[in-house]
Amino acid sequence: MRAVDIIRAKRDGNALTRDQITWMVRGASDGSVPPYQLSAWLMAVWLRGMSPEETAWLTDAMVRSGVRVDLSAVPGVKVDKHSTGGVGDKTSLVIAPVVAALGVPVPMMSGRGLGHTGGTLDKLESIRGFRTRLTLDEYRQQVAELGCALIGQTDEVAPADRTLYALRDVTATVESLPLICASILSKKIAEGIDALVLDVKTGSGAFMAREEDARALADALVGLAERSGLRVAALLTQMDVPLGRMIGNALEVRECVDVLRGGGPSDLVDLSVELAALMLWLGNGRPSVAEARAAVREALVDGRGLAMFRRIVERQGGDVGMIDDPDTLPKAPVQADVLATAAGFLARYDAGMIGRAAVALGAGRARAEDAVDPGVGFELLAMPGDRVEIGTPLIRIHANSAGDADTARAGIVPAITITDGPPAPRPLILDRLGLARERPDYHAP
Amino acid sequence: MRAVDIIRAKRDGNALTRDQITWMVRGASDGSVPPYQLSAWLMAVWLRGMSPEETAWLTDAMVRSGVRVDLSAVPGVKVDKHSTGGVGDKTSLVIAPVVAALGVPVPMMSGRGLGHTGGTLDKLESIRGFRTRLTLDEYRQQVAELGCALIGQTDEVAPADRTLYALRDVTATVESLPLICASILSKKIAEGIDALVLDVKTGSGAFMAREEDARALADALVGLAERSGLRVAALLTQMDVPLGRMIGNALEVRECVDVLRGGGPSDLVDLSVELAALMLWLGNGRPSVAEARAAVREALVDGRGLAMFRRIVERQGGDVGMIDDPDTLPKAPVQADVLATAAGFLARYDAGMIGRAAVALGAGRARAEDAVDPGVGFELLAMPGDRVEIGTPLIRIHANSAGDADTARAGIVPAITITDGPPAPRPLILDRLGLARERPDYHAP
Repeated sequence: MRAVDIIRAKRDGNALTRDQITWMVRGASDGSVPPYQLSAWLMAVWLRGMSPEETAWLTDAMVRSGVRVDLSAVPGVKVDKHSTGGVGDKTSLVIAPVVAALGVPVPMMSGRGLGHTGGTLDKLESIRGFRTRLTLDEYRQQVAELGCALIGQTDEVAPADRTLYALRDVTATVESLPLICASILSKKIAEGIDALVLDVKTGSGAFMAREEDARALADALVGLAERSGLRVAALLTQMDVPLGRMIGNALEVRECVDVLRGGGPSDLVDLSVELAALMLWLGNGRPSVAEARAAVREALVDGRGLAMFRRIVERQGGDVGMIDDPDTLPKAPVQADVLATAAGFLARYDAGMIGRAAVALGAGRARAEDAVDPGVGFELLAMPGDRVEIGTPLIRIHANSAGDADTARAGIVPAITITDGPPAPRPLILDRLGLARERPDYHAP
Repeated sequence: MRAVDIIRAKRDGNALTRDQITWMVRGASDGSVPPYQLSAWLMAVWLRGMSPEETAWLTDAMVRSGVRVDLSAVPGVKVDKHSTGGVGDKTSLVIAPVVAALGVPVPMMSGRGLGHTGGTLDKLESIRGFRTRLTLDEYRQQVAELGCALIGQTDEVAPADRTLYALRDVTATVESLPLICASILSKKIAEGIDALVLDVKTGSGAFMAREEDARALADALVGLAERSGLRVAALLTQMDVPLGRMIGNALEVRECVDVLRGGGPSDLVDLSVELAALMLWLGNGRPSVAEARAAVREALVDGRGLAMFRRIVERQGGDVGMIDDPDTLPKAPVQADVLATAAGFLARYDAGMIGRAAVALGAGRARAEDAVDPGVGFELLAMPGDRVEIGTPLIRIHANSAGDADTARAGIVPAITITDGPPAPRPLILDRLGLARERPDYHAP
């Protein structure tokens, strides 16, 4: 087989065979196909597309380029959740412990934040000592013993995806549905899961801003997950405004602890309950989604979710004292409030602008090699729909210096919209796909 | 400027700016844009195309990536010819000396054979001692003193084209009109020419087998040459059967000497006269193409062309004795004839099959690093249109061994078509483009 023939076939719009795709992916991981051939192929894929069948073969080949963790020794259906990313999107820290506490194992490998969306690993690492880099053996053992582990992808997981992603990033071939779907799902499948809940976000703070693009991504992900043998349910959710009140790593951990204590803002609670209920239900933890939803709410109120989170933090070397007393989490030295300059109703915060301002503050990274600052971020003091007067505090900036706070203020003031009348209610969940679509009981929460 | 943005713009079908194109080409030659970004860009260009304006900018940037030879010290209009390549296509060795002998300077940089088509440099190097690698200073001086030099492209000429071509070859991005045209013309412009005659071939032995593809290439080349400031005329010519009787390096030199002595097969003579006449006319060597044609025929008959060829060979270190006595040119040890197995008319030899069999014999190269054998090849003993009987010798194989000859026989027998009736006459020149189209006197040979 020759790379140039495979590139030519895709260039000409032909479907590739399973052997051709497997051969290219193997070439990407063992270096036998050089980067300049891989990138020409990726551009041809970008422009010509891939059929669902080709995409499934690509996904499978990427899984096989590394280790697929064998969790068969752990009884039960292993379930994970994947979000396409958003601003203030912190549900993983709530739902992984809650679902595990309710008896369904959650083996969760997450990523770091890049661009204006945050990353679960960065949030967890704001807890002093928390180790996100476990070996696959430690990971497997922890899932078996505790029911949950929260780690980063190790080098053994889908190495071909890493090689291809690095090339896509510099060759304008990131935004391709088949390549995006194969990249996401190859890593999830390699974790050892049986079922997956997807949170596909749309809006200014999402990877796919336009709803039709996000819907296409959701459809493609669900189709690919099904073809790959996973039980899958998906939500299409709104990401025009940040989720919850907190944006920034330690601030978001604090907010998750609030939710795990039965509190927290209703949008974050509702979405977390919905996602966790789907996981619990897919994992056979409850016979219906309605019952699963009730069980999750109960475990948030009675402290079982929080107890599991404490055990995970402890097991992964984190300082549990920070969970017990979130005031001890890292804090930025400077706080400054942005006040309303008009009276009326707070209509919205633009999630994209808020996310980019958070990155500029140091809460996220513009480049993969940048470090993040755990303490900085934004606290939304008023929420969309609230009535505000001139001078009402809207957003508290947590920054490292007054200068940083001023820069952040300039970035977020344009994100605030105040209107005379109350804003239209904004549905958080726009659609339900996969198994979530098919079960009628799910539609009557 | 960032390569990823330029790749994305082309991926999305946008026209690039002159600055963007120049920046990418500079990156290709100085290594600041890595191969994997260049190849993704090339694939995007392949699939999205380039406007005539973009193609002209690309050509200019490739010229500027190296030395553009300054021949302004040589009086007159400097003219070259470029053929897109064919089997038995040896006109350069005839027309360069004839046109130079008639007073129009011919600075000619040629390539080597690759695939089933031969290369001028390989042919010249079958003359013992002939140096095709002159320095640019030697080249300039020889053009000034003698009126002609026949050399290979030096490393200083269009280095960006070399880098890009090497990538195109392994990433299935060769067959792109803008990339092909820019590659051909950047090298020609860098030679220092003012005018160019193009011989664009079509048929089974040509780079573009289908006439519509060859016509599109001819149109694009003519348009680009005009836009680049050259005087340009082009012929679209038939390459379904080999040109002349000889295929193979020393055999072709021998046939060219025949033509320069006033003999040779009529198809080769007619095409050589046509191309040389256009060069002479574009170079202001004669006021009309008809007069130029007559002058060329005269210079072939009276030996002025041959005398110039001798002087070029001598000046470039070649053994003139081989021109004076072509029997001393390299010869293969084994000759074997292919005989007709049916009576009738010889309708055609398939040029593509003959060319590939010649490569297998050692007359050409399958890979750029292969060496060629000067002595081997084919001699067409009967020509299309001839009446043949069973046993009439059709093709003489010149090979290094009886085994090679047998292999070659198996390759060329399927190339022979014998029919009951005489074949339809086959026009050699299918169309005339550029300045060749516009001048009415040209159409009445």
